[in-house]
Amino acid sequence: MNIQKLVKPNIRSLRAYETKEIPCKVKLDANESPYSPFTFHLSPFNLATLNRYPDPEAKNLRKLLAREYKVKSENILQGNGSDELIYYLITTFGGPVLYPVPTFSMYGIISQALGEKKIEIPLDRAFDLNAEAFLKTIKKQKPKLIFLSSPNNPTGNCFSQDRILKVIKFASSLIPRPSSLVVVDEAYQAFSSKKSFLPFLKKYKNLIILKTLSKIGLAGLRVGFMMADSRIIKEVNKVRLPFNVNSLSQKISAETLKNRKLLQSFIKSIVSERKKLFNEMRKIKGIKPYPSDANFILFKVKDADKIYKELLKKGILVRNMRGVINGCLRVTVGTPRENAIFLKTLKQLL
Amino acid sequence: MNIQKLVKPNIRSLRAYETKEIPCKVKLDANESPYSPFTFHLSPFNLATLNRYPDPEAKNLRKLLAREYKVKSENILQGNGSDELIYYLITTFGGPVLYPVPTFSMYGIISQALGEKKIEIPLDRAFDLNAEAFLKTIKKQKPKLIFLSSPNNPTGNCFSQDRILKVIKFASSLIPRPSSLVVVDEAYQAFSSKKSFLPFLKKYKNLIILKTLSKIGLAGLRVGFMMADSRIIKEVNKVRLPFNVNSLSQKISAETLKNRKLLQSFIKSIVSERKKLFNEMRKIKGIKPYPSDANFILFKVKDADKIYKELLKKGILVRNMRGVINGCLRVTVGTPRENAIFLKTLKQLL
Repeated sequence: MNIQKLVKPNIRSLRAYETKEIPCKVKLDANESPYSPFTFHLSPFNLATLNRYPDPEAKNLRKLLAREYKVKSENILQGNGSDELIYYLITTFGGPVLYPVPTFSMYGIISQALGEKKIEIPLDRAFDLNAEAFLKTIKKQKPKLIFLSSPNNPTGNCFSQDRILKVIKFASSLIPRPSSLVVVDEAYQAFSSKKSFLPFLKKYKNLIILKTLSKIGLAGLRVGFMMADSRIIKEVNKVRLPFNVNSLSQKISAETLKNRKLLQSFIKSIVSERKKLFNEMRKIKGIKPYPSDANFILFKVKDADKIYKELLKKGILVRNMRGVINGCLRVTVGTPRENAIFLKTLKQLL
Repeated sequence: MNIQKLVKPNIRSLRAYETKEIPCKVKLDANESPYSPFTFHLSPFNLATLNRYPDPEAKNLRKLLAREYKVKSENILQGNGSDELIYYLITTFGGPVLYPVPTFSMYGIISQALGEKKIEIPLDRAFDLNAEAFLKTIKKQKPKLIFLSSPNNPTGNCFSQDRILKVIKFASSLIPRPSSLVVVDEAYQAFSSKKSFLPFLKKYKNLIILKTLSKIGLAGLRVGFMMADSRIIKEVNKVRLPFNVNSLSQKISAETLKNRKLLQSFIKSIVSERKKLFNEMRKIKGIKPYPSDANFILFKVKDADKIYKELLKKGILVRNMRGVINGCLRVTVGTPRENAIFLKTLKQLL
């Protein structure tokens, strides 16, 4: 049986997202938090009721998120990670899907998986949005969805707020209608000195904010959420699998969100460590770290492949950006001890 | 902003899957197990590492499932519930999607969400497959995917094995190629006296077996899996979100699978209760229960809407099949006590 003939043409050329687990002592490759905010006791009741389906509407979790972000529950939709919501957004609205490159790879992978056209526009030399190119492309190609990661992964910077707003405004005023929807992906926003785009939700009805708990300490639970006009939420909810966020993820993330102080203290520590790490990396000859608003630092280094391998030999796993930004590695901010080991080893290798 | 103009045409007419939580004392509507097999202690380690992403390949869980079903790990793909795997199958292979009706509603809902054509063929009067109509339709319309739920939900019976095999064989020998893939959804197979289609995997390369842990006590965890030729698994894996099954679901389901005795004892008790319940229901005048190989019983009753509401008034929630099989209700097999309350109340109402 020829399986290749059976699959849709857009799947044939698609490659599975590579996520092999690589054994290491210091894991600084996946932009996880080095701290787990899980501190409470899982009651026997939560565990004894696993035979029941989860709350399909995740009411309690959405209520807590609504309170936290000062929106209504009807403006929030839960996902099994924010990548699932990217899936649902593209399923609901289709393509073309427009985004800058380099950025989070799943915008492109999911567009291809769903057979939708993708349009990629390179960032400028400062890793900022090329707003003119975006406006031209929006006018000409009328993308259904525009994804802007803010801060951007893997570059670490935030795009200029005025450029993002220019794109949102332009996309909302297309003649003839309909508008393009702009998804501002704030996966790393908690670590940024720049403000969230959340306050613009009321003004721009074509704006969607995407957030996740994966970067602030709960990657293992898979909880993401989007915030938007309730009419958008209602449409995307149609293609959502009814029980997409499981019972324990709902329960544990809700409990964790109640402990804001702990979450904030972890974030504060990561931001302060990022600053230290950046300053130390700037002093090392032979590498060039890029300023970051996220929980990781991108850096250019001669012979990146070799340095990547040698770090791994010493038990330190970072992300090799080959094929995305050649000659660059990306290191996640770890605990003070992990960062010290990374710095010391890197210096020895150069 | 006109949201309706923005969404894909196939989404406009789609309605969200209705899964409102209805308060009740005796919950017999969702084909859950009344027993939770969760008996072990979640180690602090499992909870303390929730800041890390789950194993993207679910290696340990797949190894255990492979051992249990005597296949290789490369023949297994994990899903966030088996409904996610239905999503991925239709994303990978597209439509037309063929299935009998009435059956599990998600085959149709997901086909529509993904914009693929669906073809529905009514079951015969004995709720069995109309094999001739299937063969004709396969020849003429060349569906990419055929879904057969065995046992079938909501009718409860298994289709004749020879009819299913006829469909699989015919679908595998289409000229010109490619074949149609046949997904035998064995969500309820554990409760059936009929044998699994698993032994046919080697012979028929176009066969896919779908299973879930949701009906045997772990609905809250969202763990489903498919078994098929490794080339099929490889293609579907391309459209899978890398971290679709979260860390706790992987861990808890793996631990639970090790406790086969406990799972078997729960299944045995449910099957024996189903037999008792069926025999008692047959004695009640004014209702007609249908024989079941699953963990629920479909029954015809005069004034089904009224009986549904009156049961609910007494705190007993069953499923009203209105719109699917009019005049029928579906009751999940509960604990002996729950079944007794249901029977007693039903008798009082008739």
